[in-house]
Amino acid sequence: MAAVEAASVDKVGLELQAILGDRVSRSQSVRDHHGKDESWHHPIAPDIVVFPHSTEEVAAIVKICAEHGTPVIPFGAGTSLEGHVIADRGGVCIDLMQMDQVLAVNAEDLDCRVQPGVTRKQLNSYLRDMGLFFPIDPGANASIGGMTATRASGTNAVRYGTMRENVLALTVVLSDGRIIKTSRRARKSAAGYDLTRLFVGSEGTLGVITEITLRLYGIPESITSAVVSFPDLKSAVDSVISTIQMGIPIARIELLDKLQVQACNSYSGLGLAEQPTLFLEFHGTTAGAEEQAKLVGEISGEFGGSDFQWTGQLEERNKLWEARHNAAYAAQSLRPGCQLWATDVCVPISRLADCIMETQADLEGSYLQAPLVGHVGDGNFHLTLLIDPEKPEELEEANRINDRLVMRALAMEGTCTGEHGIGSGKMKFLQAEHGDAVAAMRTLKLAFDPQNIMNPGKIISL
Amino acid sequence: MAAVEAASVDKVGLELQAILGDRVSRSQSVRDHHGKDESWHHPIAPDIVVFPHSTEEVAAIVKICAEHGTPVIPFGAGTSLEGHVIADRGGVCIDLMQMDQVLAVNAEDLDCRVQPGVTRKQLNSYLRDMGLFFPIDPGANASIGGMTATRASGTNAVRYGTMRENVLALTVVLSDGRIIKTSRRARKSAAGYDLTRLFVGSEGTLGVITEITLRLYGIPESITSAVVSFPDLKSAVDSVISTIQMGIPIARIELLDKLQVQACNSYSGLGLAEQPTLFLEFHGTTAGAEEQAKLVGEISGEFGGSDFQWTGQLEERNKLWEARHNAAYAAQSLRPGCQLWATDVCVPISRLADCIMETQADLEGSYLQAPLVGHVGDGNFHLTLLIDPEKPEELEEANRINDRLVMRALAMEGTCTGEHGIGSGKMKFLQAEHGDAVAAMRTLKLAFDPQNIMNPGKIISL
Repeated sequence: MAAVEAASVDKVGLELQAILGDRVSRSQSVRDHHGKDESWHHPIAPDIVVFPHSTEEVAAIVKICAEHGTPVIPFGAGTSLEGHVIADRGGVCIDLMQMDQVLAVNAEDLDCRVQPGVTRKQLNSYLRDMGLFFPIDPGANASIGGMTATRASGTNAVRYGTMRENVLALTVVLSDGRIIKTSRRARKSAAGYDLTRLFVGSEGTLGVITEITLRLYGIPESITSAVVSFPDLKSAVDSVISTIQMGIPIARIELLDKLQVQACNSYSGLGLAEQPTLFLEFHGTTAGAEEQAKLVGEISGEFGGSDFQWTGQLEERNKLWEARHNAAYAAQSLRPGCQLWATDVCVPISRLADCIMETQADLEGSYLQAPLVGHVGDGNFHLTLLIDPEKPEELEEANRINDRLVMRALAMEGTCTGEHGIGSGKMKFLQAEHGDAVAAMRTLKLAFDPQNIMNPGKIISL
Repeated sequence: MAAVEAASVDKVGLELQAILGDRVSRSQSVRDHHGKDESWHHPIAPDIVVFPHSTEEVAAIVKICAEHGTPVIPFGAGTSLEGHVIADRGGVCIDLMQMDQVLAVNAEDLDCRVQPGVTRKQLNSYLRDMGLFFPIDPGANASIGGMTATRASGTNAVRYGTMRENVLALTVVLSDGRIIKTSRRARKSAAGYDLTRLFVGSEGTLGVITEITLRLYGIPESITSAVVSFPDLKSAVDSVISTIQMGIPIARIELLDKLQVQACNSYSGLGLAEQPTLFLEFHGTTAGAEEQAKLVGEISGEFGGSDFQWTGQLEERNKLWEARHNAAYAAQSLRPGCQLWATDVCVPISRLADCIMETQADLEGSYLQAPLVGHVGDGNFHLTLLIDPEKPEELEEANRINDRLVMRALAMEGTCTGEHGIGSGKMKFLQAEHGDAVAAMRTLKLAFDPQNIMNPGKIISL
C-alpha cells in the first residue's frame, strides 16, 4: 500500500490542529522519534504526530483519519521489539504519553484505572504507599497502554500471569471513532463476548486503548531474592522444570547463560560466578516465602546448583533486578555500536531444556554472539543477537538463526512469541503457528477495521 | 424468526443420516430432552438431535446446516441456567456427550486435552492417580465443553480463576464448517488475536467447541475444610471481604444464608447451626494451609464467627461439598414441585455487603422464598427463587426481584452474570451492562456467523 499523499497529509494536519492546537507536530525530529522502537527494525517516520489528552480527543483524531483513510499508529514508550510502531504506510502517530494519569485506585477491591501513558514504574511509585503493586514487569519502563496492546508479561508472570490475566476492563476507540468500554470492575463475568481479551494483544490493529482497569496485589509481607549458579545450562533448566512441576508459587525464576552473566558482571558490576545462573524471588508470608526458598534450594542442590546467595535487603534486591532489566544493554556492551535482535519463543515447560540445548548447539555454528536470558518458569527465553544491521550478511544470519529457533519451538507445540508480539517482524510465522486460524484473525481484523487504517501492516496483512 | 420448515427438516435429516447413520434422532423424547436446561425457562425442542464422535463429524454437520440455513445448537450435560440450549428457532441440536475422551494428559506440563463431552467429575477421576486435578467446579457435573462455552467458574475460582484463565487452547468448528485451533500449548503467547478467549463464553453462538486444552494443578499436599457460622449475614460477608483484601490465597469461601443452611441441614443431613455460614477450604503445603486457616480464623473471630468446625477427613470434606453442590436441590425441597430461578450477579468485593444487604431488604417485601448462596470471594452470589412457572404472577414477581437485583449490581460496577452466562434469559440486560460495546459484540457475531445459524437468539439478537 502506498504512503499517504502529501496533499492529504496537509488536510489531515489542519483538521487535527483545529482540535488539538499545538499538540500536532510535523517536525522531522518528532516524526523520526516516533518511527522507531528499540529493535533492529528499520525506522520509518509517520507523517504527523499528535499528543491527545483524553479519550474524546483520541476519538476525534481517529474520526478524522477514518474520513481520510489515513493510517493510525498508537505510540507509548517506544520500547517494543518487533516494529510495532514503524509507520511503513505513513499516517498519524498518536503519542499517548501525555495521557499519564492514574484515574482511580480502588484499594479495597485491589484494582485501579489508568490512562495508557502511565508507565509501570510510575504506577508502582503511585501505589507503594497504599501497600499495593502491579506485578507485570517486562523489564523496560513500558507504558501500561503498550503493555496491554502487546500482551506483555516478563519476570513476574510465572506467578502473577500476563497482561491477559491482569486487565479487568478497557476503554477503546474503535476504527470509526466510537468509544466502548469492554467490561466492568467485577472480578469475573459471563456477560457476552470477552472484548477485553480481544483488545489485549491486538497491537493497535483493532482500536486505540485509552483507559485500562488493572488488577492489583498487596505488597507481600516477605520478598526475598537469591542467586544460584550451575555447572552447566542443562542443570539450571532442569532445576527450573522441577520447581514448576512441583507447583511452587515462585514469583520470579530467571535464567542467564554464562555469556549473559559475563555481560552483566561487566555492565552492572555484579561479581557473579561466570556460570549459568538463576535469579530467584520469593513472595509470601515470612514463613511461606521461607518454605518456598527451602524447597527450591533443595531442588537446585539436586542439580548441582551452588548455595543461594541471598539478597534480602531492598537495595541489594534492586541492584540484582536492575541488572536483570539491563541485561539487553549489558549484552549490547559486548559489541559496542551493535543493534539487538531479541528472539522470543515460548514452549511447554517439559520441552524447555531440549529447546534451549538445541538452540545453543545451533548457535555454535554461527559467528554471531547471542547471550541468553529467559523467563524460564513460563518456558519463555530470549537470545539477544548482536548485529550490525548495515551488514546484510549479519541480518541474514540472525534471520536464519531466528527462523530455525521459531520452527524448533513450533515443533515443540510452542509459540513464535511469548511476550513481544507479532508487529511486522513476526508476521511471516503466523501461518506456521496458527494455520487456518489466521483466516479467523483476518475476519476479526476486517470486521473491526474494514478500511485497514489501524496500525496497518501489523499482525495481519489485508 | 420462523422455525425451520418441515420439508427442510426432512432434507437435513436425510443428509445427516448419510454421515452419522443411526446417530441422528427425530424421536419426540430425545428431542424433548434436548430442548431444556435446569432452569425455569420454557423448553422448546430442536427438530433433530445428532451424536457426533469427532471434530470432523461436527464439521460435516455444521456444513449441512450452513447450506440449509438451519440453526445449530451445541448441547452438553444440559445443566445451564439461562435457556442456552432451548431451540426456540428449531434446528439441529449437536449432543457432544459421546465425544467423551480424555485425549492427552501432559503431566509434566500440567495440561491436558479433552473432548467436550468429558464431565468435570470424569476428568478429575481420570487425573487423580497422577496427582493432578482440574479445579473449576460449577457444582453441577457439567461437561468441559459446556463449562468452556459459558465461561463457568464456581467454588474454586477465588483461587484458581475461571474457565477464562484455565483454557489454553481450543479446537472450534466455525459456522461454515471450517476447523481451527485457537492456540498452542505454551503457557503464554503474544502471537496474534486471542481467539481462545473469544470462544470461551461465546455460548455456541460463534462456533462449536470440539476439543479443549486445559491447565491442570498438582493436588495440594494439604486440603482442609472448615465451617464457621456468624450471628448475622453482614458479619459473615464482612469477614469474607477482609479475607480477600488481605490477599489470603483461600481455595474456597462459600456463603450460605440462614434459610439455605436450614435447607441443607434438612436435605443433606448436616446438623449445622441455623445461622449465616461460610464453608471454607484451604490448599497448600501443610504449613501453608495451616497458616491460611489461622489467619482466616482470626478474621472471622473479629466478626463474631464461631470456632471453626474442621472437616479434615476426605469423607467429611466430601459430605460438606456435596451438600454445597446440592444446595439448589436442597432449596427446591423447601417447596416441593417448584422450579428454580437462580440469579447470578457479581460485584466488586467492596460492594458485596451492600449488595447482599440491600437485596435481603428487597426480598423482605416479597412473598417468594429465595435462599442465598455465593462464591463470595469473587463477589458473586445467587438467590434461588422458588417459583411455580405455571403461575404468571410468580414469574412476574421473580422477574421483578431479578431486575432490581441486576440493576443494583450494575449500579455498583458489577455484572448481571458472574458465571451462568447470558443465554436467552439475560439478553435484556446486555445493553444496560455494556452500552455501546454491544454493537462491537454484534460486529463479532456477524463476522463469525453471518447467517445467524449458531445458537441463534442467544447473547446477541441479530
